[in-house]
Amino acid sequence: MERNIEDCGLFIVGAGPGDPELITMKAHNVLKRAEVILYDNLCNKELLGIAPKTCKMIDVGKQPYRKCTTQEEINDLIVGYSRKYDVVVRLKGGDPFIFGRGFEELLFAEGHGIRAKYIPGISSMQGSGFADIPLTHRGISESLWIITGTKKDGSLSKDLRCAMNSSATVVIYMGMKKLAEISAIYTESGLGAVPAAMIQHVSLPHQKQVICEVQDLQKAALREGLSNPAIIVIGDVVKAREIFYQQNQVKLVG
Amino acid sequence: MERNIEDCGLFIVGAGPGDPELITMKAHNVLKRAEVILYDNLCNKELLGIAPKTCKMIDVGKQPYRKCTTQEEINDLIVGYSRKYDVVVRLKGGDPFIFGRGFEELLFAEGHGIRAKYIPGISSMQGSGFADIPLTHRGISESLWIITGTKKDGSLSKDLRCAMNSSATVVIYMGMKKLAEISAIYTESGLGAVPAAMIQHVSLPHQKQVICEVQDLQKAALREGLSNPAIIVIGDVVKAREIFYQQNQVKLVG
Repeated sequence: MERNIEDCGLFIVGAGPGDPELITMKAHNVLKRAEVILYDNLCNKELLGIAPKTCKMIDVGKQPYRKCTTQEEINDLIVGYSRKYDVVVRLKGGDPFIFGRGFEELLFAEGHGIRAKYIPGISSMQGSGFADIPLTHRGISESLWIITGTKKDGSLSKDLRCAMNSSATVVIYMGMKKLAEISAIYTESGLGAVPAAMIQHVSLPHQKQVICEVQDLQKAALREGLSNPAIIVIGDVVKAREIFYQQNQVKLVG
Repeated sequence: MERNIEDCGLFIVGAGPGDPELITMKAHNVLKRAEVILYDNLCNKELLGIAPKTCKMIDVGKQPYRKCTTQEEINDLIVGYSRKYDVVVRLKGGDPFIFGRGFEELLFAEGHGIRAKYIPGISSMQGSGFADIPLTHRGISESLWIITGTKKDGSLSKDLRCAMNSSATVVIYMGMKKLAEISAIYTESGLGAVPAAMIQHVSLPHQKQVICEVQDLQKAALREGLSNPAIIVIGDVVKAREIFYQQNQVKLVG
């Protein structure tokens, strides 16, 4: 069967936050004809079952503090396979272009003459909805700031101080090793009582969450046994349901 | 056929940014058994074709500056249909919990004793990837701030001044009527030359985009005929490809 040129190339694909049903139809359709899949450890492995039996599955998961595939090795694998095969999928947890280094991989491949395409994924922050926390809510938060807890140099983004003083909902990715630091930044500014949530294994049956004040993040995580992979949501949206019921009590009862 | 209770109720569903293939498998599966769909004008109408022929399709699109269904009317329609039918889908463009008022609708329904569930969607900002702009990029932008151009009271979010002075990529939703104001805020702080992009009809075949300096947003939109629905992306990520090639020229040639 001759392939349409549009259907070939390297696909940088978002696997979504965990639940395999949260992948897009577009991603599903590409996985169905994948010849090679290079996947991260945050992808749900069930998704590999969508691909043909003959598909090569390459685990390039980067495991913090353990021996792992480096970004340079991943780039080389992507280029190597894309030269040999027509349909190569680079499957990444969440969305590849939100803290996913997907664009780096796309540019690296492109620089080696490989045609690369992006297919977005539901980002894990969107899974906060499964813990009954909207990212924005009219009258409570009308902006949204997403920060990584672990920058290129390992530090927490300085933007947190700025975000904290805005009216934004703050979402922190990869921040579970920085809980004490996050709490301290808020507490020093007298904002220790702002509501916060930590949600682990977003969208999966074993999703686990805890709600506390931002000053108690570390204590609460220890008590409830929460660790990576998790997102941290800080702001009044954490209490959106409570606030709504307070404001609308009379109306709803009547 | 008896229905599983898990499969019934009100589903607040994200339709994604435009391309109908960018809906999730989970949303697709719910649409296949929908009895009623209440949809916005930003949803791709092709998605309605997934539902059974007997499904009732209710257009509740809010059209700015024209007679339209109010939020109160939408809430009442949701409650009314959910009382009569087992599978009711509230289909909203993008993601329902990112500037979508989806959580308001969920809480309103819940307050009337209706079981409501959330299914996330790809948000239109993620479509910036189709214009070759990643939302974050290591070494260029390690945070992401999403602001609405039109708050509850019609004003531009004050958070923009705060965001502007951070290292975040700034994404503005519903900001096309505020271009002069956005440019002025940057220009007054000597940041008029920051790169910006406007992307209309994200992810659709007629997607249209323009890249300019933030001080020239209005001029560029007029020249290229860009209007709503569009997203505005401000920050160095707009030039991520250019920056990457400058930094890696020798390495890639070698």
